Amino acid sequence: MKKNHKEMMKARKRNIKLVLAYDGGHYHGFQRQTNHVLAVQNVLEEKLAIIFGDEIELAAAGRTDAGVHAYGQVVNFFTDGTIPVERMVRAINSVLPEDIVIRSAVEVGRDFSARHSAKDKTYLYRIQQGDIPNPFTRQYAWYIRKKLDISAMQMALAQIVGEHDFSSFKAASNVTMSPIRTIYEVSCEEKSEGIIELFFLGNGFLYHMVRNIIGTIVNVGLGQTTIEQFQEIIAAKNRKYAGATAPAQGLYLYKVTY
Amino acid sequence: MKKNHKEMMKARKRNIKLVLAYDGGHYHGFQRQTNHVLAVQNVLEEKLAIIFGDEIELAAAGRTDAGVHAYGQVVNFFTDGTIPVERMVRAINSVLPEDIVIRSAVEVGRDFSARHSAKDKTYLYRIQQGDIPNPFTRQYAWYIRKKLDISAMQMALAQIVGEHDFSSFKAASNVTMSPIRTIYEVSCEEKSEGIIELFFLGNGFLYHMVRNIIGTIVNVGLGQTTIEQFQEIIAAKNRKYAGATAPAQGLYLYKVTY
Repeated sequence: MKKNHKEMMKARKRNIKLVLAYDGGHYHGFQRQTNHVLAVQNVLEEKLAIIFGDEIELAAAGRTDAGVHAYGQVVNFFTDGTIPVERMVRAINSVLPEDIVIRSAVEVGRDFSARHSAKDKTYLYRIQQGDIPNPFTRQYAWYIRKKLDISAMQMALAQIVGEHDFSSFKAASNVTMSPIRTIYEVSCEEKSEGIIELFFLGNGFLYHMVRNIIGTIVNVGLGQTTIEQFQEIIAAKNRKYAGATAPAQGLYLYKVTY
Repeated sequence: MKKNHKEMMKARKRNIKLVLAYDGGHYHGFQRQTNHVLAVQNVLEEKLAIIFGDEIELAAAGRTDAGVHAYGQVVNFFTDGTIPVERMVRAINSVLPEDIVIRSAVEVGRDFSARHSAKDKTYLYRIQQGDIPNPFTRQYAWYIRKKLDISAMQMALAQIVGEHDFSSFKAASNVTMSPIRTIYEVSCEEKSEGIIELFFLGNGFLYHMVRNIIGTIVNVGLGQTTIEQFQEIIAAKNRKYAGATAPAQGLYLYKVTY
């Protein structure tokens, strides 16, 4: 049955790739939910059905958690809808709520899968540091009152670059997947108005991995964990040595490369 | 009766000045409301009463409309509460909702009035211009798809600097107050990510004046109104020649000087 359904979807004429941004604040994550909680995928599939005249079933590059945002989530779906590609962005945005925005739409080859064809992903994490919280960034950054030592954070973060066993930063519930991932680039920089931006470029990320790294690296910034201890936490390959999971509202799925 | 109440408030020992920022998105403006709609003043007076142990009655530098934000609203109130001034900011913020933040607190002379002692005010208006709306600024800027001619807007805006009769930009309902105001400085600049910031420094602003100027200046930016026509609109002293009132979510009471 399941296979027939999948083949039916694949039998459709066109494979469409969308890049989208969303404010995750009002959604229970990206992945389709039942039981009266709203996910970005629910809204998107419902609205795409209006524009394309087909029942739509999306595949997505990454599953963002409740409250997590996206600048550059990527999805694809098969459709027989005939709307020209150059009209898609405006047409879809005209029916979407304001907190979900299509940034681009292209028709791609039948083999393209937003999920399986992804080469690497970039996540952004935003912290607002300062004596006074900013009411305009409270839903878009993690507020930390105490001063953070940015250069200590940078030095500690340099140690996660490369191929590592990231078991220390995986979600406690995650037991089945391989914990080996490669991080190509990390940056940590202070922007204007006390905003600190951390970018992570890698070939894949474990569930909660970025938020667990952030929770631990903030302890380095606060002087509660030394750079040597951070190295030991990685080497321990055990979740219990790392810091708490950083809040969802600072995290953004920033970019996916194919 | 009213006078006795006012004197009772004035008989209290201390006069406290607060500078505050708020996200106006969930409030029916600053000014205290009855009938089950929530204003920033309602929340503030209720929470200050907890910290100061007095019934609090605020005076504010400016009344922001529903949906309008503030970086630097100023209020004052009289109290017999004994909390030291250096503890006030954290104490008050600890009981306020996250969308209202006290930035500073000082004890001032008995004659200080946030409303009547104000010398000049700065308003900021933010526009997001670009092909694609940004879901993260939708509540903090006016989204305009079409390209705006910033230098035409700057040239037109230069004409409002100085003392003028701003009748063309006053709210239609506002008939009693003098329409003469002095604008000291105006700026209009494109920031990163398509955000255009317009600052207005003046000795006072009529109700809806900034939003009506913005609605008109955007027509200049779109090429629908020439710089000469903008000059004629000012000279006409008649609201019907100006553009529509720009949306509330782009406006910020930025700073008040005493």
